[in-house]
Amino acid sequence: MKKLAIGIDIGGTNTKFGCADREGNVFFQDSILTTGHKDFNAYVHQLSSSIHQKISTLEGNPEIIGIGVGAPNGNIYTGTIEDAPNLPWKTKIPLVNILEKEFKLPVILTNDANAAAIGEQVYGGAKDMKDFVVITLGTGLGSGIVANGQLVYGHDGYAGELGHVNVKPNGRQCGCGKRGCLETYASATGIQRTIYKLLADYNTESELRDISFNALNTKMISDAAKRGDKIALQAFEYTGEILGRKLADTVVHTSPEAFFIFGGLANAGSLIINPTKQAMEDNLMSFYRNKIKIIPSGLDGAKAAILGASSLIWKKYEEKQE
Amino acid sequence: MKKLAIGIDIGGTNTKFGCADREGNVFFQDSILTTGHKDFNAYVHQLSSSIHQKISTLEGNPEIIGIGVGAPNGNIYTGTIEDAPNLPWKTKIPLVNILEKEFKLPVILTNDANAAAIGEQVYGGAKDMKDFVVITLGTGLGSGIVANGQLVYGHDGYAGELGHVNVKPNGRQCGCGKRGCLETYASATGIQRTIYKLLADYNTESELRDISFNALNTKMISDAAKRGDKIALQAFEYTGEILGRKLADTVVHTSPEAFFIFGGLANAGSLIINPTKQAMEDNLMSFYRNKIKIIPSGLDGAKAAILGASSLIWKKYEEKQE
Repeated sequence: MKKLAIGIDIGGTNTKFGCADREGNVFFQDSILTTGHKDFNAYVHQLSSSIHQKISTLEGNPEIIGIGVGAPNGNIYTGTIEDAPNLPWKTKIPLVNILEKEFKLPVILTNDANAAAIGEQVYGGAKDMKDFVVITLGTGLGSGIVANGQLVYGHDGYAGELGHVNVKPNGRQCGCGKRGCLETYASATGIQRTIYKLLADYNTESELRDISFNALNTKMISDAAKRGDKIALQAFEYTGEILGRKLADTVVHTSPEAFFIFGGLANAGSLIINPTKQAMEDNLMSFYRNKIKIIPSGLDGAKAAILGASSLIWKKYEEKQE
Repeated sequence: MKKLAIGIDIGGTNTKFGCADREGNVFFQDSILTTGHKDFNAYVHQLSSSIHQKISTLEGNPEIIGIGVGAPNGNIYTGTIEDAPNLPWKTKIPLVNILEKEFKLPVILTNDANAAAIGEQVYGGAKDMKDFVVITLGTGLGSGIVANGQLVYGHDGYAGELGHVNVKPNGRQCGCGKRGCLETYASATGIQRTIYKLLADYNTESELRDISFNALNTKMISDAAKRGDKIALQAFEYTGEILGRKLADTVVHTSPEAFFIFGGLANAGSLIINPTKQAMEDNLMSFYRNKIKIIPSGLDGAKAAILGASSLIWKKYEEKQE
């Protein structure tokens, strides 16, 4: 009987869900809005119904072995989502408990970046690696750290929050309440802020002077940079320099074989990877130099969220078999 | 038959060696000079002879199960010591190979701070912890990171070099060739440099104005601080503030249950721990606050080097039995 795992990725706007086999084939994939529901119960009711409906369409009566969930502040130990700044529910949500009752299946919850890291290990470019880090560059900067082949969750489940290492004391205001966090510089919103800083500081001509702060997105900045826009190019240099300097600090922690860069800003490719790599190397001790890769995620972007979440189940399943 | 493990701790000046059982009882302990030998072969010959001689004095014919070695830049994967700035041998030393041939026993080599971390787990305050960090504050700042119950060695064996996270771009000159590394501020030599900086910047009276840079040591600074010397007190505040700020960055990496502080500067107790704890808490996101301990090592200082090194063998031995 064919075995499949369900993956759910809860984002600030959309909740994606789908179903994948161990080889990374996705059998269905859909989404609902995360926002706009009366309360959490109404949301989870719509989500469960949608998944049940999709499961009923699967051919060949496959065996569903579990549900993996990636969500901001999702905690592997407690099975709850707590204090997630970008989600509409402000109480502690016992998500694992609710979904286990609803589906009578094992459910594993962690944050989206940790799920991306396990996804990289199960389906992506880290299949043969025991020590690596996934950096997700979206609205914020998320990270999943793998050491000795295991995701590092820490004693409380909250390890791997590299978006909140300090870059500058009294630097940019961060959503977490602190100032100068890495994600206020190195993320989709970080580079947007940098563009506006540069437009303020310099008189350089730029096509981005015609775009409002709220309308500006990473693709516009990438496109402008590819056309040679000096402000856009400078913003990538600046972003990469800050990110690379901080990755050098991560190297002295866990000495990974590779950093996988994932998400919106990562789509800019060499525009972001080259200055990041340069700054990282410049800040490494000699015995770390020229051996740590910075590479794009090996997961197919369109399926990545589902693969990341469902990989949590495959990883656990295979550990049990050993 | 009683089982014992040999521990060897290679320092810049002395090489300590001894023999411990699983309960942390030390059956012999001695040392030779690390320096002053014609070459590495002459050194290792004296070391081996001394250990053989001590073993021959053990009563009750115990079984020696292996030799653990802690040494600067000791690499667990290659079994070599390479490019250690504080050791007299400038080539790559295949220490594990040499000792295995000499003693016909399994030999495990890693750096001294990693050995201290395993020692904390086997014999010290981390017996029930799966996620913690040991910080050694000696001439430099060393660290051993344990996550999911395992020492984090990284893909190349060089993880856990927190002494070399950057504190200030273009900050103090470090022995590693970079500038502004944490250990140039937070270590025995770091606080010594800070004292001289403060003596230069302020006119404040201080008993330390009568002591030369080379004569000044951590105990003198602690003693002066305990007598209320303002420069000494300010130096502890400054050191703790820099260390604590960086420990907050380590928390977002591996979210440890505790930091164990070990070595010369750690003997200053609350003088260093209180400002470190304060600065760490001030720089943490809310969900990390008030739950991470900063505590002195639970290893007996006089036996710590031997226990750390021999614990490498016990840890491996017990993993094999499982």
